[in-house]
Amino acid sequence: MKILIINPNTSDEMTRAIGEAAQRYARQDTEIETVRPDFGPRSLENAVEVAVATHATVQKVMERRGQQDAVVIACGGDPGLYAVRQLLEEPVIGIGEAAYHFACMLGYKFSILIPLADPTAERLVSSHGLVHRLASIRVVDIPVLELESDLEVTKQRLIAEGRRAVHEDGAEVLCLGCAGMALMDKAVEEAVGVPVLDGTVCAVKMAEGMYDYGLKTSKVAAFKRPDSKEYVGCSDLYDNV
Amino acid sequence: MKILIINPNTSDEMTRAIGEAAQRYARQDTEIETVRPDFGPRSLENAVEVAVATHATVQKVMERRGQQDAVVIACGGDPGLYAVRQLLEEPVIGIGEAAYHFACMLGYKFSILIPLADPTAERLVSSHGLVHRLASIRVVDIPVLELESDLEVTKQRLIAEGRRAVHEDGAEVLCLGCAGMALMDKAVEEAVGVPVLDGTVCAVKMAEGMYDYGLKTSKVAAFKRPDSKEYVGCSDLYDNV
Amino acid sequence: MKILIINPNTSDEMTRAIGEAAQRYARQDTEIETVRPDFGPRSLENAVEVAVATHATVQKVMERRGQQDAVVIACGGDPGLYAVRQLLEEPVIGIGEAAYHFACMLGYKFSILIPLADPTAERLVSSHGLVHRLASIRVVDIPVLELESDLEVTKQRLIAEGRRAVHEDGAEVLCLGCAGMALMDKAVEEAVGVPVLDGTVCAVKMAEGMYDYGLKTSKVAAFKRPDSKEYVGCSDLYDNV
Amino acid sequence: MKILIINPNTSDEMTRAIGEAAQRYARQDTEIETVRPDFGPRSLENAVEVAVATHATVQKVMERRGQQDAVVIACGGDPGLYAVRQLLEEPVIGIGEAAYHFACMLGYKFSILIPLADPTAERLVSSHGLVHRLASIRVVDIPVLELESDLEVTKQRLIAEGRRAVHEDGAEVLCLGCAGMALMDKAVEEAVGVPVLDGTVCAVKMAEGMYDYGLKTSKVAAFKRPDSKEYVGCSDLYDNV
Amino acid sequence: MKILIINPNTSDEMTRAIGEAAQRYARQDTEIETVRPDFGPRSLENAVEVAVATHATVQKVMERRGQQDAVVIACGGDPGLYAVRQLLEEPVIGIGEAAYHFACMLGYKFSILIPLADPTAERLVSSHGLVHRLASIRVVDIPVLELESDLEVTKQRLIAEGRRAVHEDGAEVLCLGCAGMALMDKAVEEAVGVPVLDGTVCAVKMAEGMYDYGLKTSKVAAFKRPDSKEYVGCSDLYDNV
Amino acid sequence: MKILIINPNTSDEMTRAIGEAAQRYARQDTEIETVRPDFGPRSLENAVEVAVATHATVQKVMERRGQQDAVVIACGGDPGLYAVRQLLEEPVIGIGEAAYHFACMLGYKFSILIPLADPTAERLVSSHGLVHRLASIRVVDIPVLELESDLEVTKQRLIAEGRRAVHEDGAEVLCLGCAGMALMDKAVEEAVGVPVLDGTVCAVKMAEGMYDYGLKTSKVAAFKRPDSKEYVGCSDLYDNV
Repeated sequence: MKILIINPNTSDEMTRAIGEAAQRYARQDTEIETVRPDFGPRSLENAVEVAVATHATVQKVMERRGQQDAVVIACGGDPGLYAVRQLLEEPVIGIGEAAYHFACMLGYKFSILIPLADPTAERLVSSHGLVHRLASIRVVDIPVLELESDLEVTKQRLIAEGRRAVHEDGAEVLCLGCAGMALMDKAVEEAVGVPVLDGTVCAVKMAEGMYDYGLKTSKVAAFKRPDSKEYVGCSDLYDNV
Repeated sequence: MKILIINPNTSDEMTRAIGEAAQRYARQDTEIETVRPDFGPRSLENAVEVAVATHATVQKVMERRGQQDAVVIACGGDPGLYAVRQLLEEPVIGIGEAAYHFACMLGYKFSILIPLADPTAERLVSSHGLVHRLASIRVVDIPVLELESDLEVTKQRLIAEGRRAVHEDGAEVLCLGCAGMALMDKAVEEAVGVPVLDGTVCAVKMAEGMYDYGLKTSKVAAFKRPDSKEYVGCSDLYDNV
Repeated sequence: MKILIINPNTSDEMTRAIGEAAQRYARQDTEIETVRPDFGPRSLENAVEVAVATHATVQKVMERRGQQDAVVIACGGDPGLYAVRQLLEEPVIGIGEAAYHFACMLGYKFSILIPLADPTAERLVSSHGLVHRLASIRVVDIPVLELESDLEVTKQRLIAEGRRAVHEDGAEVLCLGCAGMALMDKAVEEAVGVPVLDGTVCAVKMAEGMYDYGLKTSKVAAFKRPDSKEYVGCSDLYDNV
Repeated sequence: MKILIINPNTSDEMTRAIGEAAQRYARQDTEIETVRPDFGPRSLENAVEVAVATHATVQKVMERRGQQDAVVIACGGDPGLYAVRQLLEEPVIGIGEAAYHFACMLGYKFSILIPLADPTAERLVSSHGLVHRLASIRVVDIPVLELESDLEVTKQRLIAEGRRAVHEDGAEVLCLGCAGMALMDKAVEEAVGVPVLDGTVCAVKMAEGMYDYGLKTSKVAAFKRPDSKEYVGCSDLYDNV
Repeated sequence: MKILIINPNTSDEMTRAIGEAAQRYARQDTEIETVRPDFGPRSLENAVEVAVATHATVQKVMERRGQQDAVVIACGGDPGLYAVRQLLEEPVIGIGEAAYHFACMLGYKFSILIPLADPTAERLVSSHGLVHRLASIRVVDIPVLELESDLEVTKQRLIAEGRRAVHEDGAEVLCLGCAGMALMDKAVEEAVGVPVLDGTVCAVKMAEGMYDYGLKTSKVAAFKRPDSKEYVGCSDLYDNV
Repeated sequence: MKILIINPNTSDEMTRAIGEAAQRYARQDTEIETVRPDFGPRSLENAVEVAVATHATVQKVMERRGQQDAVVIACGGDPGLYAVRQLLEEPVIGIGEAAYHFACMLGYKFSILIPLADPTAERLVSSHGLVHRLASIRVVDIPVLELESDLEVTKQRLIAEGRRAVHEDGAEVLCLGCAGMALMDKAVEEAVGVPVLDGTVCAVKMAEGMYDYGLKTSKVAAFKRPDSKEYVGCSDLYDNV
């Protein structure tokens, strides 16, 4: 099968790391392609950046319609997830939700480790309807683009906050809340002693399972395919929807 | 004071009607300017259209920074509300939330009348934290751009669904859930016998009250001003944030 | 327009301060009259005092029926709000709810500063259906009637607890939870750096907006006008309802 | 032991029926005294009547302080429950809550049968924290004071709505939601085939159990005894609290 | 009346203490019999032990069908409560739920004191639909079977955690969360100054009250009597259900 | 990898069908073994049967410890899930939860089709923390053991209730709520037009994904391995835990 991973951040470094993490755990017969939008902020840390990146992500996905069996949105905040899911027939999985759903079957309560303090993180879990399973959201206090600049520091901060999540908040599983934390999962898992989930890997495994089972996105309500609509002052990209 | 109303839909007819509704109830010393984004779909009826419109709305607001005392986002789904609120110091009010908050003080339960069936409407109320006050969401089954094509039909559908909301669902107040229903409020109110709220008017009155009281948007957490960030492949519009 | 503000507490000092706060931000064409009930406790700090004051407030409002365009109940706990709303056609606004609704549009989470520890405060917010927006309730630990005895101490306590609400609890807006804190809003706002809301002012601005928009209380369910009823052993005050 | 039952309604007929129901199931060594306030509406059907009755109930209870081992507030809406509980050391039980708590141990979901449509009934259950156990609130559509005027009609309406609660709403237990339905329990139970609870009886049995176990009301937070307070323009009844 | 108390733990010492606590507060005309299952773990501290004990409890109850007027399940986690309630006509009461329901009428928030840290305790309260009334769950950190080995240590730990529950968590009533804490109630109550509830006593008083009122378990939905069913490889104990 | 599927029902026919469904979608390198407990009811339709089956399931799993890479509990009610998860290191997945988690990524709201009316079904979803995603629970009204007796009837009933779930309740995905509905998924999917999930298949795909990613059950809190404990009157099966 073929999975298209789109990183809504435009950072090439992050996009490469995401692809590497996905490849590491994908099945041999799974082809992974990792892309980023053509425009937008290098990282997503507020609602303004998310607004631009969501548009750019949708546009990128439109270019690639019909070329893959599943799509993964590789940003912890699942930006554009519902829009992309409306556009496509194949399964579309956000790495945030994928990690949470796996976490729910490996322990009762999970925590999320995020780069910077962000009051919207809890609302994301709530909008996915999973707030009863959330132990806490812990902040490592490193901006997204600096997560990769000193990997050792990032790892130590993830371990420190992960331990607090487990010992103070009752977390049983840790979700890495940002695609920029890719490849850190096993080191943190070994240090903290609980399962640590990179959402990109979880989403790839979910996609493979759904593909095997012949599943597609439901098209009857929330993710019904949009009708055509007149656009003003912008490309007719969408007029073939 | 000066209020900028931005209609995230690019329909000029709708933008004009919104401006007219706002003017009708604004105070004499309130200057209203109503604009639409430079690009995007003529109406917003799914997550894809919202994705594009949110980007376009943010961009339009950036052009107009520092020129008004309050901003109103004139679409029932409050698209881009949190992004725009992050960018500005002055109050930024969505017409969805404004109607709900007024409704909560005129009755205990309110219903929302929306153009087409849309499973995300309830999630909007929930994300505003007001779900305990919602009686129902009722669908008039007319696409946004057709709401104005036969005003009499639209009015009769609003009245019919409004009555069902009151008599079957326990609604005490009705919120017109789409800016395209502007100017219908009093006719529906008279027919159904409960307060009927056009969010645009509610938002204008909220903005006037906040201005008199000297209030600004809180900048400490959810709506903190974004730091500058490198953008790839798109205009440097945001680099002066 | 004419707004009747009723302070359910019988303290004349507090009633005067409430009137002064309201006047400070009312529009020039708004006439404010501030009254207190004829009987009852000087301040409301438990359910027994609220029971007496609610009766007294309802009785006072009945004397004044038909003489104003809106009524404001000026006690942070909104005592008698639903009873008074049932009795009248014009908008009736509690200063508790008014502050919370304004707060919801200036930040995502708000805290309330209250005089003394009171486990019912959280239930009030919950009964208004706004509990998802509440960051915390912070206690300044000064009885209501002493709030005005040393204004500097009160202000410093409000600032100290307000800062804790912002820095420890995630509050973005502060609501002064007692009418006895009137006139402290701007000093606390300047010191803490987030919007600080005096519910009396918020209620006056809400009332002005509703009046401009021609809105009345919904009379179909929760706030339906009571039918006449035989009373035993007490004045026939209500028999003309 | 001695139980004081206070009926917040001033109807003497209803007060007598309540006393009769209580006696029917009280233990032989339990002395029941049933009283009504000295003033107030004959029945409670809206927030205005509740406001007066709550004051009157508190005042009546104050006259009787120290003369009984438990107090029962005999109105389905539990008016004044928290105020009276603050004033006394002995257990104070509302007939609404007593019925709900018994119901929770005899089935999983219960319904409440109430006289007239009243949107506040659901909020009562919610304020008691029991909303997850509520199947429905069903209206028999007979004003409180008419419940006793044609007992056969009342019984048939209770049976009809009780059956609907069981068969359409999933109720397993029925709570009679008004003290005016006293003495109807067993007839409805026999006809509908599920347990039917008269809250007055439930409260008496709870009170007997608490007395045997030596339990008193907790005085540390919600029901702390009020400090003395200056009252204006009304009797000094409370100054000895 | 006759009450059968079944202790799902097979510890004879604990069973004796439970019986003694029940006798201490039962009415003179109440006959108490206390039994334990024929097989299973001596104490219940995880889901595996609960699985075995639930089976054993159900089997024991089946042997005793038709011989009592009420059954009490004497383990704080209410194991097998719903299964036993399905099997019998008479009231079946869990000591966990009994304590919580009494607690709700003696204060607003209650805490539970449990032997060892157990993340499922909160889910129990939630499954009973009472989570809004829970202040906290506090751990005394003594395994169930050691609770009785040094009674003074157990009492001091209960008092210490009970005080924390009251002063730090806002508890107004304490529930002893394990049948192994039997007979400690009054000593803790005296030391901490709030009502302390032994669920076994609460359940006995509930059972007496239900018996007096002629109440039986509802048989229409959740606790409908099971139809006969073929069992494989185990005794035909149930074939007469 | 090797997956042990345990069907808590003792029906051999159902166990065979479960195994066939699992094999149909398992990867070629996945070895599936499907077993049933040595004792217990042929199907699980009430809390009594679940009590026995849970014990039996735990006992069966203990015999097979250390022989597989993942365990699937193949009953829609996930009986014994938490107990088995405590006992083992490898992932343990319930077919109920597996279906719900997949459903959450293919649509926003899902419904569950169950054999007979059962008020505990909703509580299961709630205990998994997923109640906000549930559209409805629909009953096909065929006892578990008869589901396979007339496959055509069962399929038509599943299709009929599935359509109602989609058109009346807003379901976007259907979960087959009983392992006895195995192999019906694709026929119902084709007829109703939304994804239809057999939890056994979902659980197998989840298990394969977790295995590839090297994940194990978290052992720090809810699913900590039980310490040894003295058992009375039953086999020492557990003493080697």
